[in-house]
Amino acid sequence: MIGRLNHVAIAVPDLQAAAAQYRDTLGAGVGAPQDEPDHGVTVVFITLPNTKIELLYPLGDVSPIQGFLDKNPAGGIHHICYEVDDILAARDQLLAKGARVLGSGAPRIGAHGKPVLFLHPKDFNGCLVELEQV
Amino acid sequence: MIGRLNHVAIAVPDLQAAAAQYRDTLGAGVGAPQDEPDHGVTVVFITLPNTKIELLYPLGDVSPIQGFLDKNPAGGIHHICYEVDDILAARDQLLAKGARVLGSGAPRIGAHGKPVLFLHPKDFNGCLVELEQV
Repeated sequence: MIGRLNHVAIAVPDLQAAAAQYRDTLGAGVGAPQDEPDHGVTVVFITLPNTKIELLYPLGDVSPIQGFLDKNPAGGIHHICYEVDDILAARDQLLAKGARVLGSGAPRIGAHGKPVLFLHPKDFNGCLVELEQV
Repeated sequence: MIGRLNHVAIAVPDLQAAAAQYRDTLGAGVGAPQDEPDHGVTVVFITLPNTKIELLYPLGDVSPIQGFLDKNPAGGIHHICYEVDDILAARDQLLAKGARVLGSGAPRIGAHGKPVLFLHPKDFNGCLVELEQV
């Protein structure tokens, strides 16, 4: 069911510093910050040859990553995202296996403009897993 | 400097259950458990089309991931590994930028039989970063 690792998302306490570090210290390809007001984050994409790193920083008053940064002030890996061909089929297969989907269970349009779902970290070894239909 | 994302390592509290979940619930390609006594872990590799997930479980009395699991009993993402062409050049560039390398600073032979270094999580947004020379 799952395909490529689409990205690893890292919540960071200082987006400019983190982007500069990936560009200057780690020598990676770093994009410009993109505000995603519908998702409560500002994102910087790090392009690696085989996948992406997404640096996440809170945007607005009710950012979904603010609580994570409150608990992890230095930042940390927030989630990993696997690609799927058919997100509804993937969801139904997961639910049939007893896994929990966060929210209503209906896919939302994610930061890349594609349908996404998040799976409950307690069901997946403490990892927040995003599925993205590609 | 950094190249491909070589793997994402996830520490898990039950290796058999986690491997079965990736195989049966997420439909991924899952290898057999491999004991790595020199590294204090048993590893299961999940093969994705563009990278790998490594499930890590403690092996022996002084496993480097036991403390992580004590703090995170459900498991969690333990580290991410970036590939580099020349690990000594990468290390020297990082040290010159003020980043800290864990241990003596000399590369060790990692679980894949290649030279590796770990960077201090406090210098990298709370993420433990492994560099592997490929």
